[in-house]
Amino acid sequence: MRSINIGLLGFGTVGAGMVKILIENGPLIESRLGALLILKKIADLDITTDRGVAIQPDILTTDASEVLNDPEIDIVVELIGGYEPARSFVLQAIANGKHIVTANKALLAKHGNEIFAAAGKQGVEVAFEASVGGGIPLIHSIKEGLVANRVKMLFGILNGTANYILSKMTDEGTSFETALKRAQEKGYAEADPTFDVEGIDTAHKLAILMMLSFGIPINLDAVYTEGISKITPLDIEFIQQFGYRIKLLAIAKDTGDAVEARVHPTMIPAGSMLANVNGSFNALSITGDMAGDILLFGRGAGMMPTGSAVVSDLVDIGRNILYGAVGRVPAIGCQAGAVRDRRIKKIDDLETKYYFRFTAVDSPGVLSKIGGVLGAHRISIESVQQKGRVTSGSVPIVMITHKAREVDVQNALKEIDSLPVVQGETILIRIEGD
Amino acid sequence: MRSINIGLLGFGTVGAGMVKILIENGPLIESRLGALLILKKIADLDITTDRGVAIQPDILTTDASEVLNDPEIDIVVELIGGYEPARSFVLQAIANGKHIVTANKALLAKHGNEIFAAAGKQGVEVAFEASVGGGIPLIHSIKEGLVANRVKMLFGILNGTANYILSKMTDEGTSFETALKRAQEKGYAEADPTFDVEGIDTAHKLAILMMLSFGIPINLDAVYTEGISKITPLDIEFIQQFGYRIKLLAIAKDTGDAVEARVHPTMIPAGSMLANVNGSFNALSITGDMAGDILLFGRGAGMMPTGSAVVSDLVDIGRNILYGAVGRVPAIGCQAGAVRDRRIKKIDDLETKYYFRFTAVDSPGVLSKIGGVLGAHRISIESVQQKGRVTSGSVPIVMITHKAREVDVQNALKEIDSLPVVQGETILIRIEGD
Repeated sequence: MRSINIGLLGFGTVGAGMVKILIENGPLIESRLGALLILKKIADLDITTDRGVAIQPDILTTDASEVLNDPEIDIVVELIGGYEPARSFVLQAIANGKHIVTANKALLAKHGNEIFAAAGKQGVEVAFEASVGGGIPLIHSIKEGLVANRVKMLFGILNGTANYILSKMTDEGTSFETALKRAQEKGYAEADPTFDVEGIDTAHKLAILMMLSFGIPINLDAVYTEGISKITPLDIEFIQQFGYRIKLLAIAKDTGDAVEARVHPTMIPAGSMLANVNGSFNALSITGDMAGDILLFGRGAGMMPTGSAVVSDLVDIGRNILYGAVGRVPAIGCQAGAVRDRRIKKIDDLETKYYFRFTAVDSPGVLSKIGGVLGAHRISIESVQQKGRVTSGSVPIVMITHKAREVDVQNALKEIDSLPVVQGETILIRIEGD
Repeated sequence: MRSINIGLLGFGTVGAGMVKILIENGPLIESRLGALLILKKIADLDITTDRGVAIQPDILTTDASEVLNDPEIDIVVELIGGYEPARSFVLQAIANGKHIVTANKALLAKHGNEIFAAAGKQGVEVAFEASVGGGIPLIHSIKEGLVANRVKMLFGILNGTANYILSKMTDEGTSFETALKRAQEKGYAEADPTFDVEGIDTAHKLAILMMLSFGIPINLDAVYTEGISKITPLDIEFIQQFGYRIKLLAIAKDTGDAVEARVHPTMIPAGSMLANVNGSFNALSITGDMAGDILLFGRGAGMMPTGSAVVSDLVDIGRNILYGAVGRVPAIGCQAGAVRDRRIKKIDDLETKYYFRFTAVDSPGVLSKIGGVLGAHRISIESVQQKGRVTSGSVPIVMITHKAREVDVQNALKEIDSLPVVQGETILIRIEGD
């Protein structure tokens, strides 16, 4: 039986998951691939810690070049994470004619265009199913399952940590801080949770999905990004009263003349499928012009789910090696010459419905003052709740607007927040799916 | 630019959808495939009806052999449906060295083993993404996305007609007959709805998914199949009171020593994701040993979604033709030599929870008599509802059991239904997901 030789960079959780799968499901995978996947070498700075998987000690090295320069290695799996040395290693592996499998969304979101160009020149594959949505075959589905479709919309819950925190806050009424601490105790959040809770990780993933969906270069900077750390239990309560749930959503839309791309806390109708994706799960809703709405749901992270995605890429590239079909499906989804840059809308140009929570002094006439400013900025109100619930001498006034322009909203809020009767910054949450 | 030539057999709804996609999204598909998909010939007995798509009239023919024997045609798309002449045409196309794309689940469920063997011998591809789940890339996801996984369980809502009827009955309290009539008016159900409502279509699809998931030959006869036509509004009401929803589920489980395979109306917890798949939508939950639970949701039928799946198969095979990589992913999911027949459990050996609705005379002691028979057959009761609601002189008694064996249940019900105090046949619904 033929064999495909693999080198692994980064022997962390996902790396150990990949190795476990190759051991436990090796014969099954071989029965499908028709070849052996042989793990030839693993490079990691730490070669002493036991990862709980049985490997021959002599395949471990602290020297990445032993993987990068081994002429027998066909595919290099990069599971180091972060920008450097991941970028340099990947580029060196490509230069050495090796195919790449990576789970590194940060790397691709920042240096993807460079990496894909280098791989294209060298005629090697770059596969990254594990970079978005863990064990859910999102990337395969967009690139191959929906190949006949113009993607019109993407709505994704792509970060399990943020979704766990918002679910916890919704189910138990806890504060953001308490929910984050719980997530850290459970191992869902890292010591520095910035990338997860501030939407940066979600934006990385959206930038990758947009490339595949719209045939554009990766453009992370154009993705408007806002996190969940300002959301309070009070907002969660109001949101539910209005019949919504809150999710950190990755949103992309093809509006014909341009593309919309944003990551922010989003209110969606409580009955929608995405609203019921809870805990650390991920889901992506894709609207194709032909296939209609499709939703893919599953475990977006973790040792075995992400390992499963890595191995699916190994098999995919393995099949191309066996059949001499390298380049069969372009890494970027379309032929290199077909990539077109498209205008990505500024957040100012967004038109959507909004939730506002004003913190106002409890006196008559406040509502009419706020309403006056909104009206002057062409923002009309769909519903208002003023509970008279006193929080340190002030009352929350919450509103749902009709569709309004973001630039008008921002200008109106600036004006409102400087009113003497308004105390503290107004909370704004965008609404989708009505 | 290179081109791939396509011949179409059967110019019905899905065929017209395929043609529409090739026209409207042609340049987009070419930018992804790097080649042209050329529709060379369409064979259909009716070549006069306008299908609403612009084709050159001279590509239409009533003679299938003009497609089957055209040496320039690379891929034959079979969208005739049914067993014959579809089977003969497909086998002839294979014999002529043509690749096959089909949406015909009935054909594959009955003659799939023969067709896959013939294609294997000839070295041609057979692709059938459109045969299960319409526009949802289910088959791609199982064969490629989850290639590293041993599939442990499948739960599927795979027939939009049955799901529409059960949703209607649940939402509006209508009878099966009324809901069916509505489905027929809406075009969701055919004049003869037997295949849809009696679970046969769902069983066809399950047999295909089981082949791919478990590496076994297609074995439709081993799939226990029961439809939804006996379900009444009264049952739907009780089911909801117990906190469940009812769905026509395709269920397959790898129990280690054997495989479970069944299609029947199934009660699942109201909060589960599958319970919230309503109307004509389809969904499949797949449990992989590595990736965990994955759910795929979308439009399981219709002109454009199913057309989208057909075209995805055309692109897939087209890529293999362009790269000389025919056979890259085996049609049956694993290498031919790796297929293993496995024991499929008889329904008698099933162990699950049950819902019973007895129709009994309204007299004291009835419940104890029924309970006595159940106890004698090792069936213990989790909860009972006896509403005293008189329906033509009798009362419904409903029960949820603990886990019990099907053979015991069947024996107990036979005994109970012959009791003088019991009037009419007892309704049995199996329960999953607790």
